[in-house]
Amino acid sequence: MPHTGQIKDKAVVIVFGASGDLAKKSTFPALYTLWEEGLLPEKTRIIGYARSKLSKEKLQDQLFWKIRDDAKEGHHQEDAAKMREFEGLVKYVQGSYDKDESFQELEREIEAIETEVFSGQKSNRISYLALPPSSFSQVSHMIKKHNYSPETINRLVIEKPFGKDTEDCKRMMSSIAKDWKEEEIYRIDHYLGEEMVRAIYHLRFANSFIEPLLNKDHVESVSIVMKETFGAEGRGGYFDEFGMIRDVGQNHLLQSIAIMMMEAPASLEDDSLRSNKLDLLKGIPPVDSADLVLGQYADGPNGKAYVDDETVPDDSRTATFAQWAMKVDNERWRGVPVLVKCGKGKSWKSLDEGLMTMTFHLRAPRNNVFNVNEHSNSLVIRMNPEPAVFFKANLLKPATRGTEAIEQEIKWTVPGRKVAGDKLAYEANIFKGDQSSFVREDEVIAAWEIFTPLVIFPKKDRSRPADRLFWYTGY
Amino acid sequence: MPHTGQIKDKAVVIVFGASGDLAKKSTFPALYTLWEEGLLPEKTRIIGYARSKLSKEKLQDQLFWKIRDDAKEGHHQEDAAKMREFEGLVKYVQGSYDKDESFQELEREIEAIETEVFSGQKSNRISYLALPPSSFSQVSHMIKKHNYSPETINRLVIEKPFGKDTEDCKRMMSSIAKDWKEEEIYRIDHYLGEEMVRAIYHLRFANSFIEPLLNKDHVESVSIVMKETFGAEGRGGYFDEFGMIRDVGQNHLLQSIAIMMMEAPASLEDDSLRSNKLDLLKGIPPVDSADLVLGQYADGPNGKAYVDDETVPDDSRTATFAQWAMKVDNERWRGVPVLVKCGKGKSWKSLDEGLMTMTFHLRAPRNNVFNVNEHSNSLVIRMNPEPAVFFKANLLKPATRGTEAIEQEIKWTVPGRKVAGDKLAYEANIFKGDQSSFVREDEVIAAWEIFTPLVIFPKKDRSRPADRLFWYTGY
Repeated sequence: MPHTGQIKDKAVVIVFGASGDLAKKSTFPALYTLWEEGLLPEKTRIIGYARSKLSKEKLQDQLFWKIRDDAKEGHHQEDAAKMREFEGLVKYVQGSYDKDESFQELEREIEAIETEVFSGQKSNRISYLALPPSSFSQVSHMIKKHNYSPETINRLVIEKPFGKDTEDCKRMMSSIAKDWKEEEIYRIDHYLGEEMVRAIYHLRFANSFIEPLLNKDHVESVSIVMKETFGAEGRGGYFDEFGMIRDVGQNHLLQSIAIMMMEAPASLEDDSLRSNKLDLLKGIPPVDSADLVLGQYADGPNGKAYVDDETVPDDSRTATFAQWAMKVDNERWRGVPVLVKCGKGKSWKSLDEGLMTMTFHLRAPRNNVFNVNEHSNSLVIRMNPEPAVFFKANLLKPATRGTEAIEQEIKWTVPGRKVAGDKLAYEANIFKGDQSSFVREDEVIAAWEIFTPLVIFPKKDRSRPADRLFWYTGY
Repeated sequence: MPHTGQIKDKAVVIVFGASGDLAKKSTFPALYTLWEEGLLPEKTRIIGYARSKLSKEKLQDQLFWKIRDDAKEGHHQEDAAKMREFEGLVKYVQGSYDKDESFQELEREIEAIETEVFSGQKSNRISYLALPPSSFSQVSHMIKKHNYSPETINRLVIEKPFGKDTEDCKRMMSSIAKDWKEEEIYRIDHYLGEEMVRAIYHLRFANSFIEPLLNKDHVESVSIVMKETFGAEGRGGYFDEFGMIRDVGQNHLLQSIAIMMMEAPASLEDDSLRSNKLDLLKGIPPVDSADLVLGQYADGPNGKAYVDDETVPDDSRTATFAQWAMKVDNERWRGVPVLVKCGKGKSWKSLDEGLMTMTFHLRAPRNNVFNVNEHSNSLVIRMNPEPAVFFKANLLKPATRGTEAIEQEIKWTVPGRKVAGDKLAYEANIFKGDQSSFVREDEVIAAWEIFTPLVIFPKKDRSRPADRLFWYTGY
């Protein structure tokens, strides 16, 4: 039976955790956008599933909270007729995550849709787990047992965190793998849907002037810098358990590094993109704790420290800032350090805007006849603010009589964008059956292997990271 | 005695051919600009020298024609007081170019200035030959004989054409070299003062991301395209004798190619820039006439053909358009063709603007996974219109759901410029004693060797080029 390929029609999307925050802020808005833009299979139906009893109003709030919020901020106009139409495609099923009867009840609802909408034909089923990762194993098992349709396409969509370290991740992955084939599993990393991350593939492989520069002969170091303006703000419960490295380092930032530094793929049709990312990750040895600096913001948004947030324990030592160096131990990159710096809340600079840049710092010119600053040359891919690709270059000062070189940008800016775009219907790839922008199991495990020695350390001895932890106040 | 170094004071500039077109349109305006911007040595005096008797009004016309013309077109305001002040620095001497007495009379005028302005001290003397090249040998000899000051700095400034072929050029050069040392001779090529040509040095040698690309492994071909909007318009007398290859090919365009393709200099202080240009030129074999196409415009500015101009013979077969291919036979560039295309009047496209671009066409991406046009990648240095440096690149189409690559420019534009700047006081280098932007004797000869087989051909047999000559009408 087919696991791959496009789902053209007869689709039922089941959103598990329909009453939760992730569904409200991410899953339902994504489905609404796909539907609005005609990117869902024809006659797609949606089932929300959760433990809570949901009133019609509460379900509407879950479905349309983000659309209404965006409308309030003037991003678009609220379209009541469209929203009613979309609501008509959604059913809600209340059920438990550990009881066979609940999933059997869900199956009856799916079959009812198949009878009413698909003339009794079996549907293709996308199960979207907007749930805490601790329930992934169990829920995916119950779906396989009760809601799997062997004649059609079944897909399981999950979102990070995929475990908390290598062993934890392996346990989760192998447990899911008992029921689901790799071709059926879509592991979301939203960065892979970001316009400027996707633009890296084109920059590198649709051109011939970038690749010759990207190696140890021409690159002195690589850096990734990311700053989120928001702090804990109500999400402290989740964040405090994970910290900065697990929240963005092991996934978003490492994926960006892999895309920037991997070998050129032989094709886009097969899985060579992901295989080449994996090769790159396998070349990165575990980060040495001597190459790590952690911090926690003391003077964040609204003047509050991280621990002042009501969702954060008062004695939390979780890092909201992290900086580390990595090596890539392969022929192409040996000796070129990769430096990562990331923080949330008020971070290492009092910037009030989000920031995400990926930079290849280039070596100095061979004969430095113009006496330029040795570190002034670089290739920058910027996601935030103002998406752009540029070379920081030394060029002749305009309108000068002399020969002075000044720093200028040879630049391409994404027209009309001040910040990185939305994910541009990233989730449409789930229906297309294009897994290349989802993370493969072996990639997730390889990524954990790089960080596990660091992240399990605080657990073993909570007092020890103190000497590496500093309280920063936005300097 | 010093030949090199800066002339700080006590300068007398003698403009030979002061009543002619070149002096009016180029030499005097340049001197005025340098004076106005404080780039002339202190208390500099100017002597205009020519055969004609010049009235005060005619001399004023020669001095200020361009300034007045520019003012009429709104480029600046006429400053009558400044113009009077400048006029006060200029004397006019009427004299012959072949009589000892005339140059002796000139010497008395110089000495009078030395007495009056420089307290009797010997002046540094810059002789600017705004004359037809046929008189260079004789006039430079007479200057050496009568107006050379062994205790101070003497400089001879000449402008193309430097002969009409290799032998003709060698005769001229060796005749001048009997009297003048190479360090005293400044051979003007105004392109070397152009902002965007000078910018090439910085682009290549003040950065590390350009040089690795500039070789046969990454470049498929190099092209130079130049279009002048004007046709013969009153200058047909000069132009018809020389034609397109001699007018711009052997000098401006070949110099641009040399700067783009030469090896990196070891220093900017010594003569290695010019030596490296020479090495490059010596690697270019003579152009094969099979690689040449010539043309003459039939429907130029104001709807007139080239031969309709009153200064052009009715039966002229002089090329106003030329296109040829060259090779560079060295390790770095072997196998990479250099294509040159240049024309004046209404040329190969009905563009109504001047055009000058220098382009490295890059090879296709190694694995063309995005299926991009194989010839869409290039590095362009554009002088006209809108000075800029850019990569023509294939980048992810903005705001797309898909993976379509579209052509975009990663670009740096000279701020505020719509066309290439003026020469930015190129001639100031004569007073500074910086010869690097003037053409060395061996470069001029090497440049002729590339074109001589082509340009002497029409002379030998005027009828033969007919099959390679076409009349173009702006298609």
